[in-house]
Parts: sequence; structure tokens; C-alpha cells
Amino acid sequence: MKNKQWIYRQRPETVVGIEHYELITQPIPTELAKNEVLIEAKYISVDPYMRIQQSNNPTWEAPHPLNCVQGASVVGIVLKSNSAAFNENDWVSAYSGWQTHATVHASELTKLDPRQASVTTALGVLGMPGRTAWFGLTEAGKPKAGETVIVSGASGAVGSLVVQFAKFHGAKVIAISGSDEKNKWLIDELNVDYALNYKKFDFHSLTNQLREISQGVDVYFDNVGGWITDAVIPQINRRARIIICGQISQYNGALDKVENGPRFLHHLLYQRATIQGILSRDYIHRHDEMLRIVIPMLKNGLLKYQETIINGFEQLPQALNMLFTGKNIGKLIVKV
Amino acid sequence: MKNKQWIYRQRPETVVGIEHYELITQPIPTELAKNEVLIEAKYISVDPYMRIQQSNNPTWEAPHPLNCVQGASVVGIVLKSNSAAFNENDWVSAYSGWQTHATVHASELTKLDPRQASVTTALGVLGMPGRTAWFGLTEAGKPKAGETVIVSGASGAVGSLVVQFAKFHGAKVIAISGSDEKNKWLIDELNVDYALNYKKFDFHSLTNQLREISQGVDVYFDNVGGWITDAVIPQINRRARIIICGQISQYNGALDKVENGPRFLHHLLYQRATIQGILSRDYIHRHDEMLRIVIPMLKNGLLKYQETIINGFEQLPQALNMLFTGKNIGKLIVKV
Repeated sequence: MKNKQWIYRQRPETVVGIEHYELITQPIPTELAKNEVLIEAKYISVDPYMRIQQSNNPTWEAPHPLNCVQGASVVGIVLKSNSAAFNENDWVSAYSGWQTHATVHASELTKLDPRQASVTTALGVLGMPGRTAWFGLTEAGKPKAGETVIVSGASGAVGSLVVQFAKFHGAKVIAISGSDEKNKWLIDELNVDYALNYKKFDFHSLTNQLREISQGVDVYFDNVGGWITDAVIPQINRRARIIICGQISQYNGALDKVENGPRFLHHLLYQRATIQGILSRDYIHRHDEMLRIVIPMLKNGLLKYQETIINGFEQLPQALNMLFTGKNIGKLIVKV
Repeated sequence: MKNKQWIYRQRPETVVGIEHYELITQPIPTELAKNEVLIEAKYISVDPYMRIQQSNNPTWEAPHPLNCVQGASVVGIVLKSNSAAFNENDWVSAYSGWQTHATVHASELTKLDPRQASVTTALGVLGMPGRTAWFGLTEAGKPKAGETVIVSGASGAVGSLVVQFAKFHGAKVIAISGSDEKNKWLIDELNVDYALNYKKFDFHSLTNQLREISQGVDVYFDNVGGWITDAVIPQINRRARIIICGQISQYNGALDKVENGPRFLHHLLYQRATIQGILSRDYIHRHDEMLRIVIPMLKNGLLKYQETIINGFEQLPQALNMLFTGKNIGKLIVKV
């Protein structure tokens, strides 16, 4: 048995793909220091932030280093443990990256309880995306009953939770996604009030449609940016809150070579509105608070989620690209 | 004696000028109802917001109606009073517009004390611009000692107060204005740390210059928008606060036919920063709080202000346009 690793070799200029990675094998480490644990990855995450980390310009930190294993959250099982806190066959999550095996210090591992929820939820609704959706909406968006909330990227890992949390708060929810199939799920299962397929619109027709159905926007939870956001911003109500959670339309190149779009800051002045950028890591210290709120929703069937599971460790680079072509519904995960 | 009035007749498409107004005369009202006061305007305000109110698109309220006296704040004296609260020759301020005389209900008048400060300060440092600067900076900007504050439109009625308030808070202040003369005042009298004349830069050179001297921006108090703001936003620090107080570069047309500029929302994501639009009227109920803080600064000579006084009621439309060509330092006022 070998440890298979996807090494990040080359920075993409535009679309990220397999050509920016190299698949190598290494021996599996056998010696464990005190408190170290050897894990075998079973599910590996691909997330939009990975493409931000490949930008040539400064982002929230230094770019992802070249010639290292691609960083990623992983759900796996313990093969061997030198820690009293973990036993063989325990389910765990760790930030061990795109590799089949990893030696991880016990302090970097989270034990998962498969009786509580599917272990894959540690990468989605009970993991980083869940935390982002909950705190981003409630702390930054502050939705109130009767308000109108628009969510772009509404069928994604974060967006599909945001629309449901917004409904729980009593808001009217307008979801924007990229396919009729996604919208059927959003309407039939997640109970959004409106679901628009942006591929059937351009800037002007989306502007008109949003104006007609929203009659003003109180909260805009933005995962995509670009022309969809251009169509939403002029429709904000007084004291609207715009949350910048993602700008996925910009990641394949426009973070380096910035696009132009319509200026809109005067609308913030007119409406005394705010835009706030959020990042999941800022709420890590409150992760347990999110779990205490969200797990009961899950257990009672009030909160729904989907996963798009791609089979095969070898598919990881192509799976990452799928985020940008919109092929996933809900959380995109690669099953090793 | 007649009441001279500037009537707003026609909406400007681009630059506002005398062709959009008509000067008429009316009889001065002689009959006063109970609690009414006849005032004679001595100083009349011109402010950038007047041009926003002429936009064809919705702003914070319906557009300024045509064929009415142009709205404006005024400082004047009481000619005749049917109110126990006001006597002949009292100095007062009112929102009575571009006219030499007006009948105003006592509840719409504010009595001024000329021994406390020049009565013209009711249009500037102790009026709407002072309130905007104080609450916009302290409530929305929340500057902390050691932080870097950039102020665009720094020599204007609001900006010139913001730079001083920011210094009182212990910030490093970078002022951006449109002339070397303004910058000399900003540096010599208002003690800003740097003053840049934007007319000597383009987007790229301003970006580089700001990067070099600021080493990151914590608070950006924006009065101008456009390419100057484009150069500031990519330089924000983590948890930066951007305050949209004005977008004067956009008022002569671009509020109706929106300009394009570089997209920047990803920077808010990276830095978990906020943009907040503010409007003076939202702080009207706290005007006295501002006065209790700012009057002592004025009386002790700690806070400086300038006024650009244009002589002649007939000059009002041209004076309004001067705001957009940057001819004023400090508060622009027309002396009747």
C-alpha cells in the first residue's frame, strides 16, 4: 500500500485542471511519534476557496505553496494511533489534503460520531460550509421575519443552507442558481419562494425579474459576484445587508486580471446599506455553537442537504473544476 | 422689497448650471399666522447632495420637484415674528431654500448664538457637514489610535473635519484633495500626515503611492468615489471600514448612466471588511450630542475650518457647480 498524493505543481492562469497537479505515490509512514495518528482518507473535499488560494495576487494569506500536497478537509478512519484519544477505525476529520494517507497530530483531528449524522456532513452541513452559512447569515445578514433575502449560488454547499436558515427566520427567499434541476430542488425541498435560473437571463432581464418579484432586497447573500450581483445591488432596501461570502464567478482568472463592472457605491449611500465580507475561519471558535443549533435541525428533518459524490481519488482536480462549471448540487465530495 | 427666488426648472443631464434654474421675484409675505416667522436669508448653502436630488433614478427619496424653490439650508435674521420664541433680529437657521425671504413656522427654525461661533458655522462645522463628519467617522469608521485613515475630498466641508477628528483619535491620516493649495492647508493647519493631489496621479500611480505611504488602510472615508476609490480599496487591511459619505465624482451624470470600474468585492472577502453608506439625516436626532463635543473643540482652537464665501444671491447656480469643479476649500456658502 502506498500513499497517493495530488501535488499542486503549477498556478492556473484561468481554468484550473489536472494539468496543474501531479499524482505521485509515497510510502505510507509507519512510525508514529507520541500523540500522532495515521489516518486513511475516505472522503476528500473540494471547495471554491482552493481556487482563491491559487490567485497570483495577495488574498487573505500567502498563496498556496507549489510542490506540496493540495490542502483540503478530509474525512477518514484511524489506521493506527499513538494517542489515547483515538482508536483504530474511529471516524475523524482533519485538514490533511488531497492524499490517501496522512500522519496527523491528535490535536489536529476531530472525532466524528457516525450515529449522529453521515460522516460526510463534517465536510458540509456540519463542517466549514455549515459554519459559513449559519454565522454569515445570522451574524452578518441579520435577517428578520418578513424581509426579503436573495441568495446567489443557492444550490451550493453554503447557499443551500443559507436559503433554509433564511426561511427559518421568516424571510421571503429568492434563490438564484444555474439550472432548472437545482431550482426544482430549491423550490420543492428547500421551500424557497422563488428560484431563478440565471442562465435564462442577462443583466437587464434579471434586474427586471428581481425587481418584480422582490420589491426590494433586505439581505443579499452573495456567493458568486459578477453580473448577477450587479443586478441585485441596485434593488437594495434601506439598511440592506450584503454579505460577500464568495465571488466564484471571478475565481478563474478575474482575481488576477480584474474585470470591470458597473459602479454601485452610490446605492449604499442612498440606502445606508452595508457590504460585509465574511470568512469561515473567523467563526471557528464558535463551531460548537453552530453544531448545537444545526444538529437538532438535521435530526428532526427540518434541514435538508445534498451531496454530489465523485468516485475516485484520481478525479480530484476535475472535481475542483466542477465547482466552477456548476455541475454539483450541494456539497461536492470526492470518495476515495 | 421683493423676495428673490431661484426656481429649479429643468433637470440637468450632466453638469448643473444656471440654465437649469430661473430667477424670479415674488412679493414678500406680510401676514404671519400664529407661530410663523418671516426671515431674511443672509447666507445660503450649496451642497453636493443637491445634485443627487437631480438624478433621474431613485435615490434616497423622490427627486427634487421641478418648478419649486431649490431646497437649501439658510442662515438669516428674523424680520418679523408671530412666535414667542423668536424676536426681530434674532439669527436663525432654516431649510428655507434659495430665496431671500421666507415665512417659516417657529418649529422649523433653530436659533443661533453669534457669540458662540460665527453664524455661518450652522451651515458647516456646527451643521449638517459637521454632523456627517463626526458620526460618519466615529460611528461607522470607528478609528483607533495607530490605524491609518484615508479621506478623499479631504479639503471639503466634511472631509476637512474628518481628517481632524481622525487625528484626535490618534490615527495616521492620508488626505486626498485636488490642489496643492488645499494640501498645504491640510498639512500646515490640519496636521494630516500626508496630502496627495489626485490631479498629479492616475489610477496606477495613486495605487502605488498609497501603497507606499499607507502600508494598508484601516478606515477609508470616501467623499468622491470613481477611480480614486478604485485605487484605495485594494489596499484595505483586515476588518477595514469603508464609509461611503459621498460619490461626488459620479454626480454629474453617472448616477443616471452608470460608469464601469474595476470589480473589488473579493477584497472585502479577503479582508472581512465592510462598506457602509451613511447619510447625515440618520443622525439628526443626535445633533446636540455632536454640538456638545465639537463646540468645545472649536472654542479651544483645536478644530479648524475654512469657508469659501461667494458674494451675491445671483451666483447660487454657479456656486453649486463649483462643488464639482473643486473650486472651494471647506464649506461653500453664498452670501446674499
